[in-house]
Amino acid sequence: MDLHILDHRLRVTSISKNGLANFTHPLIKLIFLRNRTRCKFFSLTETPENYTVVLDEEGFKELQPSEHLQVEGSIWLPLNVVSNGNASSSSQAVGVTKIAKSVIAPLAEQHVSVFMLSTYQTDFILVREQDLSVVISTLEEEFHMFREVAGESMPVQCQDVSNGLHKNGKEAMLTVHPVLIPQNQFCVMSLDPDTLPSIATTLIDVLFYSSSPKEEAQSNQDLDTINFFSFSLIDGYISLVMDTEAQRRFPADLLFTSSSGELWRMVRIGGQPLGFDECGIVAQISRPLADSDVSAYYISTFSFDHALVPEEDIAGVRDMLHHQRKEQSSS
Amino acid sequence: MDLHILDHRLRVTSISKNGLANFTHPLIKLIFLRNRTRCKFFSLTETPENYTVVLDEEGFKELQPSEHLQVEGSIWLPLNVVSNGNASSSSQAVGVTKIAKSVIAPLAEQHVSVFMLSTYQTDFILVREQDLSVVISTLEEEFHMFREVAGESMPVQCQDVSNGLHKNGKEAMLTVHPVLIPQNQFCVMSLDPDTLPSIATTLIDVLFYSSSPKEEAQSNQDLDTINFFSFSLIDGYISLVMDTEAQRRFPADLLFTSSSGELWRMVRIGGQPLGFDECGIVAQISRPLADSDVSAYYISTFSFDHALVPEEDIAGVRDMLHHQRKEQSSS
Repeated sequence: MDLHILDHRLRVTSISKNGLANFTHPLIKLIFLRNRTRCKFFSLTETPENYTVVLDEEGFKELQPSEHLQVEGSIWLPLNVVSNGNASSSSQAVGVTKIAKSVIAPLAEQHVSVFMLSTYQTDFILVREQDLSVVISTLEEEFHMFREVAGESMPVQCQDVSNGLHKNGKEAMLTVHPVLIPQNQFCVMSLDPDTLPSIATTLIDVLFYSSSPKEEAQSNQDLDTINFFSFSLIDGYISLVMDTEAQRRFPADLLFTSSSGELWRMVRIGGQPLGFDECGIVAQISRPLADSDVSAYYISTFSFDHALVPEEDIAGVRDMLHHQRKEQSSS
Repeated sequence: MDLHILDHRLRVTSISKNGLANFTHPLIKLIFLRNRTRCKFFSLTETPENYTVVLDEEGFKELQPSEHLQVEGSIWLPLNVVSNGNASSSSQAVGVTKIAKSVIAPLAEQHVSVFMLSTYQTDFILVREQDLSVVISTLEEEFHMFREVAGESMPVQCQDVSNGLHKNGKEAMLTVHPVLIPQNQFCVMSLDPDTLPSIATTLIDVLFYSSSPKEEAQSNQDLDTINFFSFSLIDGYISLVMDTEAQRRFPADLLFTSSSGELWRMVRIGGQPLGFDECGIVAQISRPLADSDVSAYYISTFSFDHALVPEEDIAGVRDMLHHQRKEQSSS
């Protein structure tokens, strides 16, 4: 398999719930006005806590500093696994499950923090730029590695990565985080970028005007259902993750989902905000999913992580997570 | 003819050029999300100086106080003339010309300030609420007057208006203001409100993202052409005034203009910002236009007034204005 280090230098930011109005101007530009920006990597995810915005440096320039904007200090680079011919994999599962053992687990063992961003099209594994040499030395045995520069894929040379390994080799306690399984059903969808204008007012309404202070308070306390909506526009491809209630607000003929039309259930990971330094969070959940060959999307946000698994697998996943937590508390 | 005092209590405000981004959130709500607001009267006009926003109290609530927002102190009420059967008028002219002698001139004589807002559908004459009794006593001989209250038209009773006349009877010097006739050609257009979502991204682009700081500086100094764009959504009707360059950015099949498809030229009135207290500015230009039976739209903004006359009449209007100014300087 090939692993590409993509040519985007990303910032991970968070806009507070009541600060969104201050960022409507740049965000609408980044979402809808492709001709006015050179931003090529943009992702906005609403959760009950805040809005997580991941974007490249061109996009980041558009966000004015503000008390409502938190910025994680690092530059993050997106990695992308390209399975060429599906040679060794017998798995039918999609998403993060496919890369659980080959990427996620080895990086966790090397104590590399990852920020995951699954989309309709693919799964991006974001790693800190400063961890790149560790990442390369960790994964170069398993993958042909390429670095994309100005549209060209350059093979990564071994001499680039000397002395990388074990730089992050500190010992870390593995915390098993509480999880939450809200009741809503999610769809993972896409859209022809040329038809984005047709859903502009609906998308603007959903993104910028739909959470009243009352709703927020509710969803913070009562996570029976969760406010979760994710939009990304990456290298010209649009991906949307929304629950079935939001989906009903969009014209049915424009958004498309995978042929199976699957519905997904969410597992939110974390009782307290997770931060960015802990390693192994994705590995903890993706490893058993891979063992059971359960597909999963995985979306990290500023505060929590979110896995999406097929509706029909949620009971099994719930049992697995319960078991995992019982083991932890008895050990 | 009937004159209706409409059931809108309006504020006249101005957003500074570099402050618009702070108001993108409420303005997009007011323009595109009818279900989220009870605002029924909204008008936004871009000029090289600023953005003039005229809106009712429901809409005004959406605008947060800011150093970038100037608010004229009064409540303004819109008047609307309804010509029932066109009884006495032999004029074929449209717009402010039709009401120049019956409304504009008499109000000017009574020293009542007016703020004009012509749209595709009609012409609104805004007067200060505090001037209403003077307005009624001035116009009640010429018109059947009605006051709209909660959707009902109530005839205005004479006893409502005792002692109104001559309240504003101060003497005023008539200033003849410099005028400017930029080269661009304008269209006055409308749009089915149900198709507004189809032009949302283009309209957002034109309104919120089209003036770079460079363009502004240029257009302030060099008014060979003028940045002027007006959008209004009043009682469910949309009106757009834009130059032919902006028009080309919109899909040709959605915006419609009057059957004649006329192009209009602009006369901007005022060398220095006009303020809101001077009377007779509209009268000064609309009276000779009426004498010549030249159609005209008229749009007041926070800083200047703008008349639009048919392309084929601009030479005659230019001569008339030149003559008017020569008389003034020699008197």
